[in-house]
Order: sequence, then structure tokens, then C-alpha cells
Amino acid sequence: MKVVCFGEIMGRLNPPGYQRFVQAREFEISYAGGEANVAVSLANYGVDASYVTKVPANDIAKSALRELKAHDVDTSDVVIGGERLGLYFCEKGASQRASKVIYDRKYSAISMAEQSDFDWNKILDGADWFHFTGITPALSDNCAAICLDAVKAAKAKNITVSCDLNFRKNLWTSEKAGKVMAGLMEYVDVAIANEEDCEKVFGIKAENTDITGGTLSKDGYIKVAETLSKKFNIPTVAITLRGSISASDNNWAAMLYQNGDVFFSKNYLIRIVDRVGGGDSFGGGLIYALREGYNGQDAIEFAVAASCLKHTIEHDFNEATLDEVKNLMGGDGSGRVQR
Amino acid sequence: MKVVCFGEIMGRLNPPGYQRFVQAREFEISYAGGEANVAVSLANYGVDASYVTKVPANDIAKSALRELKAHDVDTSDVVIGGERLGLYFCEKGASQRASKVIYDRKYSAISMAEQSDFDWNKILDGADWFHFTGITPALSDNCAAICLDAVKAAKAKNITVSCDLNFRKNLWTSEKAGKVMAGLMEYVDVAIANEEDCEKVFGIKAENTDITGGTLSKDGYIKVAETLSKKFNIPTVAITLRGSISASDNNWAAMLYQNGDVFFSKNYLIRIVDRVGGGDSFGGGLIYALREGYNGQDAIEFAVAASCLKHTIEHDFNEATLDEVKNLMGGDGSGRVQR
Amino acid sequence: MKVVCFGEIMGRLNPPGYQRFVQAREFEISYAGGEANVAVSLANYGVDASYVTKVPANDIAKSALRELKAHDVDTSDVVIGGERLGLYFCEKGASQRASKVIYDRKYSAISMAEQSDFDWNKILDGADWFHFTGITPALSDNCAAICLDAVKAAKAKNITVSCDLNFRKNLWTSEKAGKVMAGLMEYVDVAIANEEDCEKVFGIKAENTDITGGTLSKDGYIKVAETLSKKFNIPTVAITLRGSISASDNNWAAMLYQNGDVFFSKNYLIRIVDRVGGGDSFGGGLIYALREGYNGQDAIEFAVAASCLKHTIEHDFNEATLDEVKNLMGGDGSGRVQR
Amino acid sequence: MKVVCFGEIMGRLNPPGYQRFVQAREFEISYAGGEANVAVSLANYGVDASYVTKVPANDIAKSALRELKAHDVDTSDVVIGGERLGLYFCEKGASQRASKVIYDRKYSAISMAEQSDFDWNKILDGADWFHFTGITPALSDNCAAICLDAVKAAKAKNITVSCDLNFRKNLWTSEKAGKVMAGLMEYVDVAIANEEDCEKVFGIKAENTDITGGTLSKDGYIKVAETLSKKFNIPTVAITLRGSISASDNNWAAMLYQNGDVFFSKNYLIRIVDRVGGGDSFGGGLIYALREGYNGQDAIEFAVAASCLKHTIEHDFNEATLDEVKNLMGGDGSGRVQR
Amino acid sequence: MKVVCFGEIMGRLNPPGYQRFVQAREFEISYAGGEANVAVSLANYGVDASYVTKVPANDIAKSALRELKAHDVDTSDVVIGGERLGLYFCEKGASQRASKVIYDRKYSAISMAEQSDFDWNKILDGADWFHFTGITPALSDNCAAICLDAVKAAKAKNITVSCDLNFRKNLWTSEKAGKVMAGLMEYVDVAIANEEDCEKVFGIKAENTDITGGTLSKDGYIKVAETLSKKFNIPTVAITLRGSISASDNNWAAMLYQNGDVFFSKNYLIRIVDRVGGGDSFGGGLIYALREGYNGQDAIEFAVAASCLKHTIEHDFNEATLDEVKNLMGGDGSGRVQR
Amino acid sequence: MKVVCFGEIMGRLNPPGYQRFVQAREFEISYAGGEANVAVSLANYGVDASYVTKVPANDIAKSALRELKAHDVDTSDVVIGGERLGLYFCEKGASQRASKVIYDRKYSAISMAEQSDFDWNKILDGADWFHFTGITPALSDNCAAICLDAVKAAKAKNITVSCDLNFRKNLWTSEKAGKVMAGLMEYVDVAIANEEDCEKVFGIKAENTDITGGTLSKDGYIKVAETLSKKFNIPTVAITLRGSISASDNNWAAMLYQNGDVFFSKNYLIRIVDRVGGGDSFGGGLIYALREGYNGQDAIEFAVAASCLKHTIEHDFNEATLDEVKNLMGGDGSGRVQR
Repeated sequence: MKVVCFGEIMGRLNPPGYQRFVQAREFEISYAGGEANVAVSLANYGVDASYVTKVPANDIAKSALRELKAHDVDTSDVVIGGERLGLYFCEKGASQRASKVIYDRKYSAISMAEQSDFDWNKILDGADWFHFTGITPALSDNCAAICLDAVKAAKAKNITVSCDLNFRKNLWTSEKAGKVMAGLMEYVDVAIANEEDCEKVFGIKAENTDITGGTLSKDGYIKVAETLSKKFNIPTVAITLRGSISASDNNWAAMLYQNGDVFFSKNYLIRIVDRVGGGDSFGGGLIYALREGYNGQDAIEFAVAASCLKHTIEHDFNEATLDEVKNLMGGDGSGRVQR
Repeated sequence: MKVVCFGEIMGRLNPPGYQRFVQAREFEISYAGGEANVAVSLANYGVDASYVTKVPANDIAKSALRELKAHDVDTSDVVIGGERLGLYFCEKGASQRASKVIYDRKYSAISMAEQSDFDWNKILDGADWFHFTGITPALSDNCAAICLDAVKAAKAKNITVSCDLNFRKNLWTSEKAGKVMAGLMEYVDVAIANEEDCEKVFGIKAENTDITGGTLSKDGYIKVAETLSKKFNIPTVAITLRGSISASDNNWAAMLYQNGDVFFSKNYLIRIVDRVGGGDSFGGGLIYALREGYNGQDAIEFAVAASCLKHTIEHDFNEATLDEVKNLMGGDGSGRVQR
Repeated sequence: MKVVCFGEIMGRLNPPGYQRFVQAREFEISYAGGEANVAVSLANYGVDASYVTKVPANDIAKSALRELKAHDVDTSDVVIGGERLGLYFCEKGASQRASKVIYDRKYSAISMAEQSDFDWNKILDGADWFHFTGITPALSDNCAAICLDAVKAAKAKNITVSCDLNFRKNLWTSEKAGKVMAGLMEYVDVAIANEEDCEKVFGIKAENTDITGGTLSKDGYIKVAETLSKKFNIPTVAITLRGSISASDNNWAAMLYQNGDVFFSKNYLIRIVDRVGGGDSFGGGLIYALREGYNGQDAIEFAVAASCLKHTIEHDFNEATLDEVKNLMGGDGSGRVQR
Repeated sequence: MKVVCFGEIMGRLNPPGYQRFVQAREFEISYAGGEANVAVSLANYGVDASYVTKVPANDIAKSALRELKAHDVDTSDVVIGGERLGLYFCEKGASQRASKVIYDRKYSAISMAEQSDFDWNKILDGADWFHFTGITPALSDNCAAICLDAVKAAKAKNITVSCDLNFRKNLWTSEKAGKVMAGLMEYVDVAIANEEDCEKVFGIKAENTDITGGTLSKDGYIKVAETLSKKFNIPTVAITLRGSISASDNNWAAMLYQNGDVFFSKNYLIRIVDRVGGGDSFGGGLIYALREGYNGQDAIEFAVAASCLKHTIEHDFNEATLDEVKNLMGGDGSGRVQR
Repeated sequence: MKVVCFGEIMGRLNPPGYQRFVQAREFEISYAGGEANVAVSLANYGVDASYVTKVPANDIAKSALRELKAHDVDTSDVVIGGERLGLYFCEKGASQRASKVIYDRKYSAISMAEQSDFDWNKILDGADWFHFTGITPALSDNCAAICLDAVKAAKAKNITVSCDLNFRKNLWTSEKAGKVMAGLMEYVDVAIANEEDCEKVFGIKAENTDITGGTLSKDGYIKVAETLSKKFNIPTVAITLRGSISASDNNWAAMLYQNGDVFFSKNYLIRIVDRVGGGDSFGGGLIYALREGYNGQDAIEFAVAASCLKHTIEHDFNEATLDEVKNLMGGDGSGRVQR
Repeated sequence: MKVVCFGEIMGRLNPPGYQRFVQAREFEISYAGGEANVAVSLANYGVDASYVTKVPANDIAKSALRELKAHDVDTSDVVIGGERLGLYFCEKGASQRASKVIYDRKYSAISMAEQSDFDWNKILDGADWFHFTGITPALSDNCAAICLDAVKAAKAKNITVSCDLNFRKNLWTSEKAGKVMAGLMEYVDVAIANEEDCEKVFGIKAENTDITGGTLSKDGYIKVAETLSKKFNIPTVAITLRGSISASDNNWAAMLYQNGDVFFSKNYLIRIVDRVGGGDSFGGGLIYALREGYNGQDAIEFAVAASCLKHTIEHDFNEATLDEVKNLMGGDGSGRVQR
């Protein structure tokens, strides 16, 4: 049984180290995408994972697929066609200077894909889990329709559906997001969100919480999860809790709401190497743990430990191994040399 | 008096050294464009040069403008707006392996610009020369219309107009190119072309010439220039003559047709460092020489020497100095250390 | 109206990352100078800024000027001549290991310039502000004389004069500095200093302050500013307050003394990317804020926020934008990804 | 139907550019092996290719497998175990300075593998072609025995067997090579050799040939192929003909002997980017062409064109595409920019 | 009089920055070894230091010796021979992700050396100090025997012998280590250990201490030192005390036990640049201080300051100078720019 | 017995690859100097070589000395003092674009050294050969005087003196060079020159020779050597013969005049990697061969082969080994991979 993830894969171009865009004479190229990052996490833990997207027939897209294959992600359902691979430029922040992203993903092959490009009945054959995020329906009306096709097909096959809300203000408005996502959420079994998503997409706001200040109210977040769960009849809701001290130092934790039960993870104070993809690595960890049948506390601890490690790894993909995640989850975060 | 150049400026992303796209983990970023390269050449020779284009309000475009300013090109008439900066990926060939270009320039700010973005009467104020290439009208119908606005305004102000045919098969068909360019050529005073352009755009073919084989017929090219000159009443026509032995070694020469007189330059056997931008550096050299009042032989020798040096320089911009061009034109190509 | 800055511009050579000099096989080259850094800051905020210096006629100096032009700094009053461009080697410290600078600036073109090289009456035409630092008169007696020429000309034109004391023990003694600077300070309207400068140059010492220990006495610094203000009749005095926990972590704040009023900025705990040029970025921020007519508290907050950001940016130039400075000054230092 | 290749995969460490080992402060890491290079070539042309080897359970070996998977090579029959991944250090020559290889492959997992590690009956299931080289039996007596197991199993399944003699004087003596290889050659259907191999392994010497001088006698090589073919009853023998002008410039051609018919390819004068792996890319091209049923002349032209392109590509793997090989084979070696 | 150090020197291959092994396309190469690091530290402080090892006759080993010579370490007693230079791959950790070491040192020249390779009577001529670590006898039985030869010869010449226990679980078991080291310790005058070594080698455990938790009991460590001192009649025992908050932040201190007197150093909170080689730099500092006749408190402060600085320096060798160590030991850890 | 070389050692800063100065964002740093290059060549061949110079007490100079020590050059007679280490910037040419050198060596420690800095009687103790070049007396009048001290002391000790004329027009005029060098040549036993030096320094011109055209007259050069030999009573004169086809391709040969006998070497057509230091590597080869007692033909062949190889090696130092030189001298320049 496999996990199918659907979304975009982009070229990520970032200046080396802490250089700003305007200082860069070279960009590192890696490949990334909200759902692609999840697929890679799962494959790294030994799960059969398949990625579905559309990319053009050129060498940049070919390189993106090579990266997925290198990470054991099945790409045999990727559609080849369209004009361009989406790109994003990414500048690493430090201390009080925030990281900065310039999207150049408009007109990408996936954003201009047609519903007829994907035969979900066939794609989902042999799958027990389907994952997408709120970024994909935001790419275009077509993509929203394709997502709806996918979740309907999944439901028909009794496949678990997970969705990370992942609101992106550059791609659509809160109004449109709320409308489109509402139509998709009824098919969702596991919802993932951060502290902003629920508010921006569905207007569900955690009270007594100040994101920029870093204070987090446990009760507020329980309320948010409960509201989301009830509104769309979603049994499982996970919320990541980021305390952004600065671009260099973050607190990182999460909570899991399962049919009324609530589990808070331990908190990690992280010195950040690269935080982009952090949320996706949480999703990958959570799906792994839930599929493995972990109990609620263990599941949220695994997901948070996995994503804690991602913050210490360059680029979007979480290159932490199953053993490393379990080790950290088990309590060893001392960082002693392994030799 | 200044030279005004109009066209696109793109980010150029190339793998380091001889790496192929699929091997690249980083791309060098530089900035380039057919007419931008000409503007930089001219500014490097001490000419007042101004560049006109449209770029979006982001840091990648800002970096492109910084590069122009660093090279003393006036950017005060650049329009800020639109969605994205055009990009092109460029892989350096070697020996029997050709260089390869992947364009990702569609939907660029300049390609989606409006005629109303540019007030040519104001832009051309103080100019005695206007330069564009066949790439710009190929970007979009709007761009073709803007080019027409520009050359009409130039003509009205008695400004010399130069055009490098620069046919790009990825941007338009020969049919469309022929039609659009014909409408523009009547305003052109100096036409520049390589051995393919005249055939692909206007069906004017040099006889007894085999491009891939490297044999060049002098008579054939005289005929081509003459035909072009007469067809559109263009007094000055320059044709570059590239003998491509391999991606590493090229012969390089050119001819100039001026009101019936013909001048052939000497030939250079070049070990290539980077040949992209080679044609543009020829255009920049020719415009400089003609504006300085060089006689026909000297003008073509200057232009060919300038572009010979460009082939030894990384990236599109020709970083050769006026002294270096004159020195090579004067006969010293021995490459002895200057110390 | 423009700001004119006068001083040296040097090539800065630093090993990549945390390499020590003796480990380096390559040096990054950037360009820097106390007053050049200020000019770049101002141009980045949209101010017309002009830089005045003398550099030799070679490609290293040409590269330095290109960098200034890329940052919109006017270089038309730069004098070309002399033997060499000053250099400095810069090794980045970490934790308990201090950053290290090796100056190789002796015999530079500007240090050997003549008073006759600069026609201040003409250079200052159209200016409303002149800025220099204590480094420039320290370069040579000629440079001290040129500074005096400049401030006298400025005063005659009713131009505001700012000076950053910037004592450099490698360039002159406290005795000489005190004597020369005293002669210049009477023309100064805005004085900038750090906790050491006033003591080393004029013997004005903050009491109850232990630099290496990181304790700072507010009262002590008010006293220093007041003393300096009264001694030379300088209405505005700004003092930066660095608490050096280690080479990796600094506290950073400042105070502004304006005609008897005192304003302390908030304090930033900074994880340092590159602290060289930090003081200059403060100067650039302060001049911007004062010229814009900010009130005392806003002015010092702007200057400190600007220089806080500089500490997170590689090389001397402050590549923070006006929006970023205002944003941090407004309270958002959480470093959340901007996308 | 698939091709199975068996041998070692090593980490290849080379200094950047033309640096010598003693100058290097960093090494590029790529992955390579005589038969692995063949498998990658085949997969690049769209052939189902599987690689069989043994590598230890560490991250360096994991990286090697990732590279194979990225190139669509099936690694599901790779055995995990043993102590170390073989390494080789590789220094690029230039002009009169030869390239230099330091092997550090002793005690590698594959060299210490046991016969029981590989179940050839199962591994060769679904295969129609098996490929190995003379390097693998040279690694150890065990490896020689494993090769014998493999070719016997292949023969029993009526699978075509190809072998590149690839004599390595650092791994064994001519005497031992001759003895071991003789035992293997009787199972071989397609033999590949260069001008030295036949002499060093079987004492079959081309007459009137001077390798270092670059003169090649056609008749001599026909004789060599014929002798080898008859001695071991091998229907197809291919011999590569390298004319080494210098480390920078080589002539490159080959001949194919098929049941008495002889085909000589055209000759390419190559400016070398990286010639290591050149012979393997010839093998990969030849196997592709023979499996596709190309006639003798086309087969040898394809194999030589493929390997000509490899010489222009960094590292061992031939990243030339099927289209590029066909294009060069079709006559276009002019290296004109593809855009 | 000189210090002789005996052990291995390896090539150290690490990915740049925070890249993981599986992400690396290049490795930095440096040279390292427990005792080699000590020799370099000593030579950097001006001590005559000689290194004794065995390396093969190839360019990688030649590069290793060049590094030692560049650091003024005498290599005239290095034996040339054997098959390979030991290597180790080293991945830098961050925050909760630990650093990771892959050893590829088996079958190295030194590990396969013979007792007859080293004439200790001659090698130790002119020496007053001999240093080795527990790594070297762990390499092979031969190496253990060679160590025994060395310490016996040293004792016969009345040379001080120091030994850093340095237990490596990848090289031998606690049982074997305990047995072999016990035989060597009776010749040792100065023993160095970290909090794990004594337990793993001799079963001497500090009570009330939790390594991963970072709590350290002073009394427990005094007890450990005392026990070790008495068991083997070793007058001087030094124990390093690392509090590993994370891979990015460590507390670092040490204690010295001298004939019953105990000295604890101050503690440093270190932001880590590269902690590999940290223990060796402590050993180098301690030997320097003891040889110079520092009192107990000064000796341990010098050793800890030296190794604190090492943590801020890339690669194994401690490139801190004598002045820098003395300066930090004297109290200046503020990291202010030195210019 | 050892060879003593005297002169400058500089930091050499070159952009990577074929970048021009104005494109460089980083410079490779290596260390070089006419006589230092010779000392390194000799030490590489196993000769005891000592270098004498003066460098300042900073880390850049320390790095220079480390490089010498790494290459087994004795630096114990280097004087520490003065203000700065000389630098030179070096841009690699290609094809028709010449390499370019910017000297920044004025005011270097050695150029401002005093005669009293060097006690030649002591320095030359144990030496049988002293080498210097025409660059050193050109640095300053002091340096010329120091050279005279050295050669006089050498002569008194019956030490062979070699001098490479090495005229540098940036350092002095032909007039001054002629005068100073004449005073030194009378102590010289072996003179080395290229085709320009004799003319520029002593007005001895080869007839029928056109440097830029690449034609060389054998008779002309014999005449030059003979004239030089007779004028200053120098028994041995060697002249290098460079045919500069372009910055990428050179012919390289030399002639040796020994007491009336003339030996011409074979000619090498070289594809150049880095030609700076080529002449010095010839000097190093020649001194080695003459000291070893090679006959005239072998001596010139060794020196030319050595320097041919240098042209294929990055940076000034000739990293070719004795075996490699002998191998090329013996006729193998085919550049076949050594494995």
C-alpha cells in the first residue's frame, strides 16, 4: 500500500549562506514543493510514496524528477507537458532579518494542467493514503478542480485523505481560499495547520495568542482544532506551534486533536539552519506515525521531532532518517558527535 | 548625444564550468539580453548609453538593473511593473557537444508590456542612435507594436536606427518574423545579421554555403547583403561569418556592405570561453565604430575584434575595453601576459 | 539636494565563512570604507548620495567604483590617480574568538592625495549634508588638511556636517587624533561615536562602564555626549552602545543627545552574520532620519534598527531596504519568512 | 527485458578543474564504476537496466545508490554489507601532463563479497543481456568466481553476455588476468577492448601500431579482433582506437568485427573535458545499438558518437541523451548553440 | 628538547557548511589525527614537535605531510609504506542534529605497520615528552605493541609520557580497551580523559552525572581522577567536562588533578564552529602548559582556553595562536574586532 | 650542500577560471615570486633549497611562509619585519585575450629592506649555488645593493651564481636596468633570459625575429647568447623561446649556450592552464640539471620539459615531480591516464 501526494514541484534557487538576493552571483538549485516534501519524508522512512504532478519536457524538470527518484519517490504518474517549471527564489534570514521568498511559479505546467491530465482512479490504485495541501488548489481554478477530482476518487476508494491548509497570501485571497477549501475539507480525514492558516482560511482564530510576540495559549489552540474538526467533520487535526524568537532561533512544538483527545508535544528550541519545508516535514512525520498506528502522544512527538530535525538541514527535503527521528523523539537532543 | 537600446533583460542561469543542466547543484546568475549587451558594450567604450525595458518590482530585477548601472548604462527610463523577469538557462558546450539554451522568458514583464508604458518622444530626447533586435518584436504583438512606435519616433527625430535581425525560432515562426520585421526594416539604417537570419526571416539565402561544414562563400554573402540592402533601402548591412568547427573552436569574421562597397574583416580562430553574446558584442562594436566615423574597413575590423574578445569572456556582457579592442584590431592577438 | 561623503574606498578581502587567514585559499572581494558605507546606506534609502575619494587607474579600483554605481552612489567627483587601492583583510570571528583585521591601506591613492585634487566649492554644489569620519584625517596629514578644506567649504555653504569619530589606533595615536579632530569638530553639527572613541580621541570617559564585561551605564553615556556637545558646540551627538557578549552575539543599542534632550533606543540581541560596517550603517541611518526630520526618538530607533539589520548581512554595505528598517523599527523582529 | 550489469561502484574524488592532488582543498564527489557507467548509459537511452553490486550500510554508499536511482538504474538487487565503499582519486591532466588515478578500492564490500551473496538465477530473471568487465574478476578471487557464476547462469538462460576486457595493471598481473579471463571469455558473446587490453591480457598484439605516437594500423586491429574472436569463439568484437595527442586532445574512433565483417567508424578529434569513463560509454552505446538491432556500421557509429560526447562531460557517467548521440552520429558536430 | 607524538594521520572529508553526507557534491579535505592535532597545537605555540606515523607513498599522504610541515611539525621520522591513508568522513551537526563520523581508516598504513618500522631509541633522541592516545593501540594489535615499545623506550630515557584515553567504540570493545590500556598506563605520567573514557575503558564512573542532560557533578569527577591516578600511579590526571546543550552550543570546562590537588577551570559557553579536534586541542594546551611549568590552575585554564578557541575554528587543527590563548585565558572572550 | 634563492615572495590573487578582474567576487590566493618559484622547483626535485626574503609579521605573510615550508623550502633565514607583503593580481587570458597582471608590490617589506638585514656570510654557509633574478634589484636601490652584497659573498665562497634577467618594465627603465644589472652580471656564472630580456636590459637583439608573429631565428638567438656570454664573461647562457600563438596555445622551447657549444631543445606545443611562473620553472629545472651534472642537451631538455609541465599547472609553483619531468623529457607527452 502506498501514499500518493499531489501538488507542484518547483526549482528552488537560493543564494549561498546568508547572502541577500542582490548580492548573489550564484544560486544553489534544489527542488521542492509542499507535497513533494511530504512524499520525500515518507520515502525516507521506508514508505512507498508516489508523487503526482505535471512538469515540462526540459532538463530543469528532468533534474527535479531525478531528485525525487533518488529519494525513492515513484514518479511514474508524473505528466510531462506544459511550458515551464515553477521556480522560487529563497533568501535565508538571520536574527532580526526575515527570510524572503520570491515566487516565480505562475504559468507553471501544473498550474495550467487540465483535469483530463490525471486519471485518479488509476493513480490511486494500490494507495491507502492521499495527501495534498492548500497550495495546490490555490494555483488555479483547474488545480482546485483537479484536487476535488482526487479527493472524491480517494473517498470512493476508502483512502485516507490528509490536507495541510498551508495558506499562501500571494496565491489567493482569504475569501477565495475559504470558499474553495471548504468544498475540499469535507473529504479530509486529517487536517494540518499552523497558527495562521485556520484564521486566514476559515476565520478560526486562536484567542490570547500573539504570533510575533511568541506567546501561545494552549487553550486557544485546542479551541481552534475543535472548531475545525466539528465544522468539517474531520476526526484528526494537528496544529504546529512556532514561536519565532528571530530568524535564527525558534521554539517549535505541536498539538494533536483526535476525536476530542488532545496531545501536546514537547517543545524544541531550535537554532535554525533552514526552516523552509519545516511544516511539510511535520506533515510527513505525522502521516508516517498515523499510518504506523502510533498513539496520539507518540504520533505528535514523532512529527515534531522529525520537523525539528528538518530545521537543521539545508533545503526543503527532510534528510533525517527514521532512526534519527526516533532517537530525538526518545530524548537525545544533545547533539553529541556520533562516531 | 546618447544611444538608446530597447529590449529585454533576463536573468541568465548557467551551471559552473562544463557541467550539464542535469548535473548542476548551483547556477551562476548574470544578466543579459540582446540589446542590453549592446548597451553595455557601448558604455564600456565610453559612449552614453541608455537602456529601455520593463522589469518587475522584485530583487532579481533590481539586481539586473544594478548590473546595468555598474556598467554605466543609464536605467532611468526603465519601467517597473509586471509579474516576472525573464530567465534563460544556459549550458556550455564543448567540442562536439553543443551549448544548450532553455528559455524561460514567457510572461516576462517586457513581453506583456503595453505601448502606453513607453513615451518614445521623451525617451529618445538627446539620442542620436536607436538600437533594437529581432528578438524584441518576437516577444509579443505588443512588443512588436512598441518597436514600431520607437522606430517611427526615431525617424521623426532623425535618429539613426540599427537592428540586429537575430531570428529566434523558439519565439516565432519564419512567416511571422518575415511579416513583422518587414514593417520595421523600412525605418532601419544599419542592419546586422548572421548567416542564418536573412534566410530564416526574409528567405534571402547565401549560395554555396554550408553552415555546419564551415565553408563560407564570400560572393554569396555579398549577394545577401546587397539583396537585403536593396529590398528595404538600408544603406549599411553587416553580416557575421561564423565557422563553427566545434563548440570549442570557431572561426570568426564579418563583412560590411556600405552603399555598394564591401569590406571583409580578417578571420580569427577562437578557442571559446563563452560564445553567448558574441553577436551582440559585434553589434556594439559596429555601432561604436560607425558613430565614431571609422571608415568601412576599420569599422568592420573593430566590430570583429571586439566580438572576438567577447568569445574569451564569461557571460553575455563584453568586458573588453576600448584599448583592448583597438590593440587586437591593430594586430596583437598573441595573448602575451600584460605586466 | 544631495549628501556628499568623503573618505577612502578599499578592497576588502575575507576568507569564506569562519576560515582563519592562515587557512584561506580564496578571499571574497568586496569594497568598503567608513564613509562609502554611509553613502551606500543613504542611496539604498533613496537619498541622492555622492562619494568623493581618489583611486588609481586599475581594474581593482574600477571594480570598487562599479559597486558604488550599482548602489546608485554618484562617483563623478572621484579623482583617478595614485598608485594603489587600499586593501584590508578581514577574518570573521566566532564565539570567544574575535574578528581580526589586517590593514594594507598605507600608500593608497587617497592617503597620498593632494589638497589640490579636490575643488570643494564645486563638489559641494547642490549638497545639503557633508559626512566624513575620523578615519580619513588619520590617513595622512594631507588627508587631514583636505578634510579641513571640506568642512570649511561646507560651513561656508551652510551645509550640515556630520562626523563619526571612528578612532583607529593603527592609523594614529590618541594624542595626534585629539589634536587633529579638535580642529575639525568645530565645523561639525552631528557627531557620532561609540563607547571607546570619545575616550581615545578626547579623553572623555564614560564612568561605571566596563566594555568587555558588557555593562553599560546610561548616565555615563549621557555625560559623555553632553561633554562632547559642549566642548565643541555640537548640537547633536549620537553614541552607539555595543554589548559584546561574544563574537557571535552582541547587544546593540544607541542614544541620541539633541540640544540637551536624550533618547535611548530599544536594545537588540543580535546573532551576528557580519558586524564590520555596523557602525557606519548606524551613521547612514541617523543621517537619513535627521534629514527626513524624524523626532529624536524615531531618529535613534531608525538608526539602530538599520544597523541591527546590517549585522545580519555579509560585507560592509548595508543591503537592508527602507521598508525593512521601518518594519523592524516598528517592532517586527521575529524573522518570520516573508512569502 | 532488461540488461543486468555487475561490478563495483566507487566514490570518485577529484580536485576541481586542473588542480593537482597536492593542491586540492576540496574534492568533488561523484560515483562511478566500469559497469555502473554502462548501466547508466543504457538507462539514459531508455533501456531497463539493473545494477548488481555490494556496498556497505553507510551514507557514502547510500549516496552512490541514490545516483544510480536518479538515473533510472534499478538497484533492488544490490547487496548491503561489508566494510567500505571503494574510492578512487582522480586528477585531471592537461596538455603534456597526464591524468592520474589513485585507487583506494582495496577491501571494498564488493571485493570481499561471497559467492553466496548473489543468487544469479533470480537476479537474471527477466534479463536478455548481462554485462561485466575485466575489472570485476580482478578485484579478488571471490569476485572472479562470482563472475563465473553469473556468466554460467546467463548462458543457461540464453542471455547475451558482453565483456569489456578493461585490463588494470594495479589490480592484477597480465599472467593472472590471462588465466582468469580465459575461463570467462568462453561465455562471452560480445567482447570490447582497447588497443592495450588484448595485448596485456591475452598477448594479442596489433602490429605496426605505436600507441604513444598515435599511429594506428587498420589491418593490425582487424587481425587482433579476428584472433580474439577465433580464440574464444566470440562472434562480436569491438575495439576502441584512441589516438592520444595529449591529455587535452585525442582522436577517437573504433572498429567492429562481426562474424568476419569489419566496420570502422569515423574519427573524432576531441577537446577533452573528462575522458575517464570514455571506454564505458562506448560499451553502453554498443550494447544499446546491438540490442536495438542496428547494422554493423550504424552500431559502431552510435557507440563512438556516444563515447565522443562522454569526453565532453564531467565525471564518469555519460549524460548525453539518445537524441544527442543520434544527432552527432548523423553528422552534426559543429557545436552550434541549441536555442 | 622536543615533544614526540605518535599515531595516525588521516584525510578528513567533510561536506561544506551544514550539508549532510547524502547532499554533498564536494568534500573539503583536511588532515587530522588525535596525536597529529596535538603536535600541531604544540608547534603553533612554538614548541619543537615531531610526528611519527606511517603513510603510503601517494599524493594524498604527501598532502598530509605537507600540512604537518606547513605547521612546523617535524616529519623526518615518518615511515613511508603501506597501502592506504586512513580517511574519515565528517558531517557537521546543528542544534538537535548530532555531528556524524564515518570511519574509513581500516587497513591504513599505520594500522598495518610492524614493530620493526620504528626505532624508538633513535626517534626519541632529544625528546623530553612523548604523547599518544587510546586511539592508536586500538588500530591493531601491532599498533598496541608499537605503543608499548614506545612508552618503554620513553621511560628508559626518562621522558614524560602523556596519554589521552580517547575511547573509540568503533575500533575496539571496552573489554579489549581496558586490557590493552592497562598495560600502557603504567608508563604514563599525564592522563587525559573525558567524562566517558574512564567509564568505557576502566569502568571508573562519575556518580550523579548525566551526560546527555548536561549536569556535571564536581565531586564525581574528582573521584574519577583520583581513582585513575591511584590505580595506575599516574601523578597528573586531567578531565574535560563537556556540557552538550546541542550540536550548536556546548559548555566547556575541565579539571586537573595533580598529586591530590584539584583545579577546576572556568566554564565557557561556546557557539560551535567545529568541535572535532576539541579534545586534542585541550591535550596540546595542557602539555604546553605543563612543560612551561605553569601552576595547576594556570595549566588547566590555558588548556581549556586553547580548546575553547578550537571549537570556533574549522577542521581538526587548532589554529589559535599562543597570544590568543593567553588573551582568552586572561579573560577577554568578548570577541571584539581586533583592528 | 644547498641552493640559496633570494628575492620577494608575494601573495598572488587571481579570479577563478577565466573571469576578468571586474567580474571577480572572489580571488584565489597563492604565493609566488620569481626566485621563490625556483626554490620550490628545486625542493620538489629533492634539492636542499633555502629561501631568503623579508616579510612582515602578519598572517598573510605567515601563510606565504607556510607554503614554502610545505614544499620543503627552508625559511629559517627569512627576516620578519616591514609593513606589508607585496601582492599581485593576475587575470588569466584566453585565445586572443592576453593575461593581465596588476602589481601591488610597492612598499613591500623586501623592497624596503636594509643591507644590514642580511648577513650573507652566514646565509650562504653550506651553499654551493646562489640564485636571483633581475626583478629583485629592480625593487629598490637597497635591494640592488643587497643583491650585490650577496653575489660578492657568493663569489668569495666559490659558490655558483645564476641569474634570470627577467626584465620588468613596471619596476624600472631599460636604462637603469642595464646599468644595475651590468654591475651584477660580472659575478654570474649562469645567465637565463627570454627573447625580450637581453634586448630590453642590454640592447642585445635577436635579428630576424618577430615575437608577436611567433617566428624564431635559431641563428639570431645563438648570436644573442654568445654576445651576452662574451660581454660579461658568463660561461653558461640559456634562452627560452616562446612562440605565443595565443593566450591559450604556445610553442615552448629553449637553447643552451655553454662555452661556445649550443644545444636546442625539442619544441612543445602547449595548451596552457597557467603560464605565469613558466620561466621560473625553466630556471629551476636548469639549475637542477646543471647541478646534477647533466650534459648540455639533457640539461636543456630537462629544463624545457619541467617548464612545459608547469604551463599545465595552476598558480606559480611547479608541482611537477622529478619523475614526471624525466618521463616527459624521455618522450611521453601523450597524456594517457596514469592508473
